[in-house]
Amino acid sequence: MIRIGVIGYGYWGPNLVRNFMLAPGSAVTRVSDLREERLTPLHKQYPGLKTCTRPDELINDPEIDAVVIATPVSSHYELALAALQAGKHVLVEKPLASTSDQARRLVEEAATRKLVLLVDHTFVYTDAVRKIREMIATGQLGQIYYYDAVRVNLGLFQHDVNVIWDLAIHDLSIIDYVLPEKPIAVSATGISHVPGQPENVAYITLFFASSQIAHVHVNWLTPVKVRHTLIGGSEKMILYDDLEPSEKLKVYDKGISVAPGPEDVYRMLVSYRLGDMWAPRLDNTEALQTEALHFIDCVETGRTPETDGLAGLRMVNMIEAAEVSLRDRGRLVEIRQ
Amino acid sequence: MIRIGVIGYGYWGPNLVRNFMLAPGSAVTRVSDLREERLTPLHKQYPGLKTCTRPDELINDPEIDAVVIATPVSSHYELALAALQAGKHVLVEKPLASTSDQARRLVEEAATRKLVLLVDHTFVYTDAVRKIREMIATGQLGQIYYYDAVRVNLGLFQHDVNVIWDLAIHDLSIIDYVLPEKPIAVSATGISHVPGQPENVAYITLFFASSQIAHVHVNWLTPVKVRHTLIGGSEKMILYDDLEPSEKLKVYDKGISVAPGPEDVYRMLVSYRLGDMWAPRLDNTEALQTEALHFIDCVETGRTPETDGLAGLRMVNMIEAAEVSLRDRGRLVEIRQ
Amino acid sequence: MIRIGVIGYGYWGPNLVRNFMLAPGSAVTRVSDLREERLTPLHKQYPGLKTCTRPDELINDPEIDAVVIATPVSSHYELALAALQAGKHVLVEKPLASTSDQARRLVEEAATRKLVLLVDHTFVYTDAVRKIREMIATGQLGQIYYYDAVRVNLGLFQHDVNVIWDLAIHDLSIIDYVLPEKPIAVSATGISHVPGQPENVAYITLFFASSQIAHVHVNWLTPVKVRHTLIGGSEKMILYDDLEPSEKLKVYDKGISVAPGPEDVYRMLVSYRLGDMWAPRLDNTEALQTEALHFIDCVETGRTPETDGLAGLRMVNMIEAAEVSLRDRGRLVEIRQ
Amino acid sequence: MIRIGVIGYGYWGPNLVRNFMLAPGSAVTRVSDLREERLTPLHKQYPGLKTCTRPDELINDPEIDAVVIATPVSSHYELALAALQAGKHVLVEKPLASTSDQARRLVEEAATRKLVLLVDHTFVYTDAVRKIREMIATGQLGQIYYYDAVRVNLGLFQHDVNVIWDLAIHDLSIIDYVLPEKPIAVSATGISHVPGQPENVAYITLFFASSQIAHVHVNWLTPVKVRHTLIGGSEKMILYDDLEPSEKLKVYDKGISVAPGPEDVYRMLVSYRLGDMWAPRLDNTEALQTEALHFIDCVETGRTPETDGLAGLRMVNMIEAAEVSLRDRGRLVEIRQ
Repeated sequence: MIRIGVIGYGYWGPNLVRNFMLAPGSAVTRVSDLREERLTPLHKQYPGLKTCTRPDELINDPEIDAVVIATPVSSHYELALAALQAGKHVLVEKPLASTSDQARRLVEEAATRKLVLLVDHTFVYTDAVRKIREMIATGQLGQIYYYDAVRVNLGLFQHDVNVIWDLAIHDLSIIDYVLPEKPIAVSATGISHVPGQPENVAYITLFFASSQIAHVHVNWLTPVKVRHTLIGGSEKMILYDDLEPSEKLKVYDKGISVAPGPEDVYRMLVSYRLGDMWAPRLDNTEALQTEALHFIDCVETGRTPETDGLAGLRMVNMIEAAEVSLRDRGRLVEIRQ
Repeated sequence: MIRIGVIGYGYWGPNLVRNFMLAPGSAVTRVSDLREERLTPLHKQYPGLKTCTRPDELINDPEIDAVVIATPVSSHYELALAALQAGKHVLVEKPLASTSDQARRLVEEAATRKLVLLVDHTFVYTDAVRKIREMIATGQLGQIYYYDAVRVNLGLFQHDVNVIWDLAIHDLSIIDYVLPEKPIAVSATGISHVPGQPENVAYITLFFASSQIAHVHVNWLTPVKVRHTLIGGSEKMILYDDLEPSEKLKVYDKGISVAPGPEDVYRMLVSYRLGDMWAPRLDNTEALQTEALHFIDCVETGRTPETDGLAGLRMVNMIEAAEVSLRDRGRLVEIRQ
Repeated sequence: MIRIGVIGYGYWGPNLVRNFMLAPGSAVTRVSDLREERLTPLHKQYPGLKTCTRPDELINDPEIDAVVIATPVSSHYELALAALQAGKHVLVEKPLASTSDQARRLVEEAATRKLVLLVDHTFVYTDAVRKIREMIATGQLGQIYYYDAVRVNLGLFQHDVNVIWDLAIHDLSIIDYVLPEKPIAVSATGISHVPGQPENVAYITLFFASSQIAHVHVNWLTPVKVRHTLIGGSEKMILYDDLEPSEKLKVYDKGISVAPGPEDVYRMLVSYRLGDMWAPRLDNTEALQTEALHFIDCVETGRTPETDGLAGLRMVNMIEAAEVSLRDRGRLVEIRQ
Repeated sequence: MIRIGVIGYGYWGPNLVRNFMLAPGSAVTRVSDLREERLTPLHKQYPGLKTCTRPDELINDPEIDAVVIATPVSSHYELALAALQAGKHVLVEKPLASTSDQARRLVEEAATRKLVLLVDHTFVYTDAVRKIREMIATGQLGQIYYYDAVRVNLGLFQHDVNVIWDLAIHDLSIIDYVLPEKPIAVSATGISHVPGQPENVAYITLFFASSQIAHVHVNWLTPVKVRHTLIGGSEKMILYDDLEPSEKLKVYDKGISVAPGPEDVYRMLVSYRLGDMWAPRLDNTEALQTEALHFIDCVETGRTPETDGLAGLRMVNMIEAAEVSLRDRGRLVEIRQ
């Protein structure tokens, strides 16, 4: 039984507490939050649970094996480092840290101490994303042409980070997980519509060594919610709509056929192939439950998490490059490897 | 009764013939196409109609008042110029010409000769787009924040022009028509997935002097057709989905309210406003019929078309800048004014 | 080359003319309509075509091989009978006739004279409906449980026939075509909301000798258009949505499994089976073109049409029974065989 | 603070417990379930809570003010009666009882003892349904023509009650709540596809004294979930789609205009009116929370619940009539008043 301490009981914290309570191999034993009033309902709901307002108290609690961090981004580094130094395994909400230097430092600390460091790239633990990865890995899509994601909504307007750190990181982490090839450079554009506030709309193009291309559109200010991803391959294409209740993944047997055309080269070179559509049945397990079980398994067996510190570092590298590009209105920026 | 000659009877030509036949003030009297076999069914369907394979024969036909050009892009300039020089009014399929120099030359020729030059930016003549323009012009949307358009499908793969010339021009012409402010610079990315062929996917960001931003995503290789435009303003937001049969336009009374927050500046600065949605009834008149009637009216009265040569020139200027940027992987390029 | 005369140039007539003009083996040579003004645009569009206002003139035209009837329902019988008696093959818009006695008389007349009599049950000639029939015939759906169709819209309000004759006949003819078993009795309800006018909403339940059930909901007065059919079988289920542009047919590998449960009979008897969904690619040929080609083929070869007079008679029998039931508020009425 | 005891901790019980825990004026103090193992996780989640397996122990617990019953239908009567006789206020899951005699007996018992009896017709407590009632009550829809509801899905197959008791009751209770006029007779059809099991598909037509009509289609065996209600009035029409995440209610300014037509009576009598669509913003409060607060308020103030025992009795009367009709294949059956 892994004993879990959760730091931060704001928007995401309650989901983490609930899932680690539910998971067979773990129990949440302590929760901390700077705001005392956030902890009050917890006592009503989980009477045995210990709480505290100071995170260091939780980090140094000898009865805790692993620390889950669900605080604002700016505190991730300090809290995760302290927890690792206290010998605790760590699960940290995305992004891993505010800068790539911090992220690298955390990766090293966890490696040195042989502790598990898992970054909460939640979508990687959904059945839809795992199925996409499998289809690409087994070659069913053929050569990948493009990955296009739209993630927009009239939602929470963040004050400390921009829409790339808040929303695009979901798509970047899915891209990182499902595409074997890693992006090498980025061109991003975007803007802030509220003076003095972070960018609330952004467009990110990722370039690869091959002719593959990826694009992510994120926006905090749209009247409707859209979660629409298109993945084009030479053999098959995927439409992944996360808002569809039961057919999140549609696989199309459509594409182009390129053939030499001796008589009429001009016309026959490219033709379209139309075919059936197929929607695989997906498991509805909550992603956070799969992730919790995976974290527990890594702690118990020493396995490397699928979204380990290095994956977290790659995300921060990508976002840093995207921000430089965005502020330079689309200038191509190489991604630090 | 305006007597119309149509050059080019491929994909779009039949629609132009049908609409100028239908319009009260005009009749198509001659059609030309280089491919004799394209003309055969025309004889069956419109028995009185004259046809020819050589366009100059049609251009110099003294019984023709106006020439409609629906040929491949590379021939637009030469044919339109010859028609204007022969004293004919001209309606030319988009884009006006292959280069901005050619486009400017056509604008000048039409101006000198006081002939009507209308560029077929078809969407400008839909009721949905006209309603959007009206809502923006009357201030109902407030300050415009962004314009985001997606126009993708598994459709016709062009060999002579890329996806920007083929698809993005529709959105660029709508943007030109509905937004009072004109874009000043562009950053574009994209790629070709068939060696030796034009780019089949592109992402275009338009920058304005204000904090307004516009983005267009076009792709010839997606498994599903999408025509999805989001327009965000400080007062209202619009979702324009051209594939919706009866509710193409949805107007949302949603947005953000920015207010000073003396006590808790950090949190209260930005809050969301949720409200009703409203879908105005739209007229279903075919856009091409509205356009045909407008062309006839301009010819008869000497009025300037809503999509005149200058609008056509602005499109070519934008696309030329976007192509330079695309080949430079997103580099910011100013748009020639 | 079959020479076709079309009687009635109202809503549906133009589609029939266009398709028989387009079909390789036929040409429309004459069109009649009581309203002279309906014929005027025809002269402009199809200059060689003969027209007349009196249908008997067309029926007795020796240059015509087959007569297509697209007039109000009340005239179907008289016109079709006259055409058969004049030795012409006949294609008549649905329904075949106003009463089952009339329909039977037409069937006999065609049989005696060995002439083709095809009833325009258009949907039978769509690729979607043909695919459904094939899937049922080959046992892919297993035992059929139910067929449920909704066909509603704010459309044309008919004055001479009610919504069953106008809309439900489409679904009844599809049911007749795809289900091997024929219904034996009907219970129908419905009402008229405009005093003195025919029923504008109706609900029809069809009973079969087996435990199969079918239901059709039709309504002229709904704010949205719906064309939604569910077909449930023991092995697979179908959702057929005719308004979907590209995925009209979705086949679900879902259903129930009934198994004996020795220990817990109560609970284990019925369980659900969830599975993939599959949307077969469909041919987009216009149904009326397929039907026109089929009619021409029957005329040339003497084959029996898929929607022959007997099918037309079965529809009239069903509707007569449904009307009796409707006026008796749901009373079970046997369908005449 | 109303102290609540909940009997039955199966599918719906946990939702009731959670909501009465959450509601400010109440606390769940005891839960009973015949299956001891259902109660175990409760101890983990709500440590202070008392549990028991025998319902009478809970009913006679002097520390309980009100009893909430969420057990199989067949036990509703006995448990509710015992609770009322023990002086407890009662909230009972729908349907109130298995027979109208039982339902009437419970109504009388509650009245005699001046105790609150609320039947859990959950949908009545949604913002969408309350808005519909308001629009009808204030005459915005004009004269009501029809109410058409579809509630189908591949869901839980019940063994003790048929699909009318399980699903149609939701729609019948909405109809009861939003329409001022009460139905007087019913015609129902339906069938069971699993031998020995209750009907799994049913179609119910409700007749009223006026020309208003209502229809409910319920089915346990469809491959997709549908919650689609159309309400047509002379002034406006409503589409209520409970599966829409943010636009559950669409109000259409469409309909028919009936006008006298002296010259052309036949044609001009009925014409269509097309107009805008409007989707009001809805409150997203969980229906069960609104219901819990309403129950608490009724207990505290003695107010009559909006879904009181009489409403529960009307539902049972309707369903009893529908079942008689269904087994008689659509025969018209009067509804007991």
